[in-house]
Amino acid sequence: AAHGARKMENYGRFLALLASTLLVGFVSVILSLVWVFHYREGLSWDGSLGEFNWHPVLIITGFVFIQGIAIIVYRLPWTWKCSKLLMKFIHAGLNTIAMILAIVSMVAVFEFHNAKNIPNMYSLHSWIGLTAVIFYSLQLFLGFAVFLLPFAPVHLRIALMPIHVYLGLTIFATVIATALMGITEKLIFALKNPAYSASPPEATLVNCLGILLVIFGSLILWMASRPHWKRPPAENAKILRPIGATAEGTEVESTMTDSSNADKSDLRSNTEAARKQNIKFDEAGQRSTM
Amino acid sequence: AAHGARKMENYGRFLALLASTLLVGFVSVILSLVWVFHYREGLSWDGSLGEFNWHPVLIITGFVFIQGIAIIVYRLPWTWKCSKLLMKFIHAGLNTIAMILAIVSMVAVFEFHNAKNIPNMYSLHSWIGLTAVIFYSLQLFLGFAVFLLPFAPVHLRIALMPIHVYLGLTIFATVIATALMGITEKLIFALKNPAYSASPPEATLVNCLGILLVIFGSLILWMASRPHWKRPPAENAKILRPIGATAEGTEVESTMTDSSNADKSDLRSNTEAARKQNIKFDEAGQRSTM
Repeated sequence: AAHGARKMENYGRFLALLASTLLVGFVSVILSLVWVFHYREGLSWDGSLGEFNWHPVLIITGFVFIQGIAIIVYRLPWTWKCSKLLMKFIHAGLNTIAMILAIVSMVAVFEFHNAKNIPNMYSLHSWIGLTAVIFYSLQLFLGFAVFLLPFAPVHLRIALMPIHVYLGLTIFATVIATALMGITEKLIFALKNPAYSASPPEATLVNCLGILLVIFGSLILWMASRPHWKRPPAENAKILRPIGATAEGTEVESTMTDSSNADKSDLRSNTEAARKQNIKFDEAGQRSTM
Repeated sequence: AAHGARKMENYGRFLALLASTLLVGFVSVILSLVWVFHYREGLSWDGSLGEFNWHPVLIITGFVFIQGIAIIVYRLPWTWKCSKLLMKFIHAGLNTIAMILAIVSMVAVFEFHNAKNIPNMYSLHSWIGLTAVIFYSLQLFLGFAVFLLPFAPVHLRIALMPIHVYLGLTIFATVIATALMGITEKLIFALKNPAYSASPPEATLVNCLGILLVIFGSLILWMASRPHWKRPPAENAKILRPIGATAEGTEVESTMTDSSNADKSDLRSNTEAARKQNIKFDEAGQRSTM
């Protein structure tokens, strides 16, 4: 299918937003390193604060930046000539890397806490953060089983795609919220003389890091939710072809089957129902690109 | 227009989710009161901690619960027989109440800080929270000027509606993230003997409150982003009427005009373009219902 032939609407605006997003994400990673190396104890793996410091660095690099890129990877127009299957592997691969980094970053905190006899899992940050990692892992596993492996029937893919998209974006937002709580905790605990409330340079730097994380998340959510920036469905799977025709049987966007609609039986005999179905179809296509 | 005649898809599921959302929001408000009255200094307006305590109570009641209801108010199917204008007034009114409560809750903190010589605006919580209130106020003002007053041209409404929706949902998510940071700060500062890390009952209760806020936000975002739960466009503004016909000139969903599309001139002469336009139209309709 000639995906690449179709021109993206507002291509220049997309590129400008993508460049801004990458810049904000990149600066966030740099700021986390400046924080850890210039103001804190650097990085190590020996139960000291240097081990704890892997936590913010890996969360910002993996669970925020890489997860953000994974969310919008289908929207990059120069990938539209690549097969959908390849893009699914890249999406799943980036999310797997993000998950591994998130888990390693949690191990760093647990080991640090245990070495220093600090209780684990008492804070709201830890409760929501662990929940986010668990949901993220389930989402990755389910996404792999349903959308990447060739076994799931098309009606299941169509039924689960809106949930996959919603859950992905909600987990991403929750991860950023959790990072903001973590920054708050760490600045209160670490800054003693001068305290956080005296606004030393470290506090200002890390507050700015928090603001950048919010901007990064907002940019990703904007790009991911613009329907005109979705990866186009396969050329032969467009709206004008006969209803019921399937071009690539395993692709969500290449089928009109819809199990979620109760009055399924008369869908194909009714213009209004066909219109609604077409819109759903378009949506499934759009959503499968994220 | 006979809005009420159209039956909502998955009505039972919508009602169950709405009931859950209201319950979670209601329990959140109750827990904030239990926190303040049972574990803290109650409520007062005298520069003491009792004045500070208005901050969490008013934020959770106004900036989370009422804002959440304002977001989904167009989706309540029993309001579909009401005029769009009335629903816009209710949407704007609820958001105005939420804004006022948010501002009063900030005044309480500033007065408390000033009375106790605690610096203002040093924390990430305060930076993001103030930014959210400013964006929320701008959004309310712009929404009022563009969507409620009758002066804005239709193409401006169509161009701004996706931004209004995106900004509204993003601010709402940011407000919840800010509340979680505030809870984290307050528990660390207030719990000294036993400390937060010793997980006293107050810490567990307020952590649960934080979890409920995340669930509340997730439920609102789910309901707000299901296309089949949108308020239906006016009966005479449906997809099958002639392209270019306008039924209610001032309603976003009753026009096909679209200023954002560059090749506007040949939109009506091309089937594929008309299809895309219809989808945009549907989207503007959907989005104007939030």
